[in-house]
Amino acid sequence: MPDTAPPLPSIIPTFHDVVEAHDRIRPHIHNTPVLTSSYLNDATGASLFFKCENFQKAGAFKVRGATNAVFGLREDQLEKGVATHSSGNHALSLSYAAGRRGVPCTVVMPRTAPEAKKAAVRGYGGRIIECEPSTSSREAVFAEVVAETGAEFVHPYNDPRVIAGQGTCSRELLTQTDGLDMMVAPIGGGGMISGTCLTLSTLAPEVAIIAAEPEQADDAARSLEAGHIIADDAPTTIADGLKVPLKELTWHFVKNHVTDILTASEQEIIDAMKLTWQRMKIVIEPSCAVPLAIILKYPDVFRGKRIGVVITGGNVDLDRLPWMRS
Amino acid sequence: MPDTAPPLPSIIPTFHDVVEAHDRIRPHIHNTPVLTSSYLNDATGASLFFKCENFQKAGAFKVRGATNAVFGLREDQLEKGVATHSSGNHALSLSYAAGRRGVPCTVVMPRTAPEAKKAAVRGYGGRIIECEPSTSSREAVFAEVVAETGAEFVHPYNDPRVIAGQGTCSRELLTQTDGLDMMVAPIGGGGMISGTCLTLSTLAPEVAIIAAEPEQADDAARSLEAGHIIADDAPTTIADGLKVPLKELTWHFVKNHVTDILTASEQEIIDAMKLTWQRMKIVIEPSCAVPLAIILKYPDVFRGKRIGVVITGGNVDLDRLPWMRS
Repeated sequence: MPDTAPPLPSIIPTFHDVVEAHDRIRPHIHNTPVLTSSYLNDATGASLFFKCENFQKAGAFKVRGATNAVFGLREDQLEKGVATHSSGNHALSLSYAAGRRGVPCTVVMPRTAPEAKKAAVRGYGGRIIECEPSTSSREAVFAEVVAETGAEFVHPYNDPRVIAGQGTCSRELLTQTDGLDMMVAPIGGGGMISGTCLTLSTLAPEVAIIAAEPEQADDAARSLEAGHIIADDAPTTIADGLKVPLKELTWHFVKNHVTDILTASEQEIIDAMKLTWQRMKIVIEPSCAVPLAIILKYPDVFRGKRIGVVITGGNVDLDRLPWMRS
Repeated sequence: MPDTAPPLPSIIPTFHDVVEAHDRIRPHIHNTPVLTSSYLNDATGASLFFKCENFQKAGAFKVRGATNAVFGLREDQLEKGVATHSSGNHALSLSYAAGRRGVPCTVVMPRTAPEAKKAAVRGYGGRIIECEPSTSSREAVFAEVVAETGAEFVHPYNDPRVIAGQGTCSRELLTQTDGLDMMVAPIGGGGMISGTCLTLSTLAPEVAIIAAEPEQADDAARSLEAGHIIADDAPTTIADGLKVPLKELTWHFVKNHVTDILTASEQEIIDAMKLTWQRMKIVIEPSCAVPLAIILKYPDVFRGKRIGVVITGGNVDLDRLPWMRS
């Protein structure tokens, strides 16, 4: 290939950062349990180990990275606090972490974001600044917020502190299982997958890393095939945590460490979500049903394997369940 | 009081039976996890320890008693197998246990029972004989089944083997927590409460035992007040596992060991169920939301206490959630 690749971002986190992150965040997060299901093992012919980050503080794995960023702030940054833009779990997680450390947190959210999410952010002590539901409005409003507050920007995934924090999840999972052949996690912006790559490439490089993506938001799969980042403008999928594109830091890990990216249709995602609720009795978001959806869809890839599966979160609107729509 | 109490039933199980049951069923059941929730602790001012029998085999605690009965059968009973009448978790549990031991299981179910429940019974290898949805039809059909098969009847709760099996749940919970002040469990026929009384009266007699009952099916509360069993004909409540009345064996334990029975309205039950799904990310049945409903309703009773709460099961129809009806 011609040498046209962009330069690497300045700070690629290392496994040492994961270990430091773990020590930093341990008092503030749960070491979440790993659940298994005889029914799903029979249905897939595999041995599945579900790392239940839906039971995590603030309801999602994102609290790991956010907490690492907040508790890693220097003394002189504390007064100005942190800021981000997110309508999802990162907004809750950053608010939670900031609340634990007692620093201000400002979140730019589209005014159309669900009231329940806004209430949860406020419940953790976060301040919400609303924007219009467009990229241009979000960026303009966010720039104002940073100019006004001087707050430290914590990106939802393209941030070495965040990636190192997410890497603590698979580090726990390895100690909770007796050897894995594969790890499957959903991919959106790539924060969880990057953290997984970071940890496994050091502790268990023999474990294949499979990313699971919605067919209707398959920009990461197309990126991996093309060899460069492809960013879609506004993909539509029930898996609302997985709409965002890769960025340079997460692309670095995906390109170098992800074995494959497999996709599932909307109906396959909904079916896998409902099956998980029915059989495992846990509340999971559509985004984290994508791994089970691809495991059910491609049995030849997964049969006979010991597979870690990251259940990324459980923040879902119980009044609008996807199987109610049809 | 005049000595008009009916004679005690012939076989009151003892704690020794619980220990034997535990050894017998341990290979076939999960030692289910205990979950906590900072949010619910803050909301109630108590320390709540949720024993998650929704993660149990067959999706409910009832598998403990059913498995104890099935694996306690004598050799000469194996060929004829077991039978019961139930449209709920006992039907699933007995089918599961019989399947594990390889003995026939016949369940009399009303033809109106949900297809999902029937499919689950068949999935475990149980045979279903349908009856009309009335007590007279059920009893007539069940008598025919027993006459035809010679199967051993395993009552859903008024059976010493079943009560001893249910007693293993609180035995586990005591080892998973560091001392309790109270234990709260739902009450319908009283099998779980009786097993709880059996275990706690031996291992931790200082723990208060509070039963939680739907206002609209409050026959146990009225029984405790009246000093004798009051059986309602056909109470209507969303908590469909709690419609059945006490029987002599369970009444023995309720009368002698239950501290109090508190009740919650339908709306309070639904709210507590939804709150549990939202905050704990677990799928629970309406029946097992009644304990949290009374804890939220009577804060003065529970504030400051360390409380074990039995989450009895998670078998719920995801297409008909109670908060969707209003």
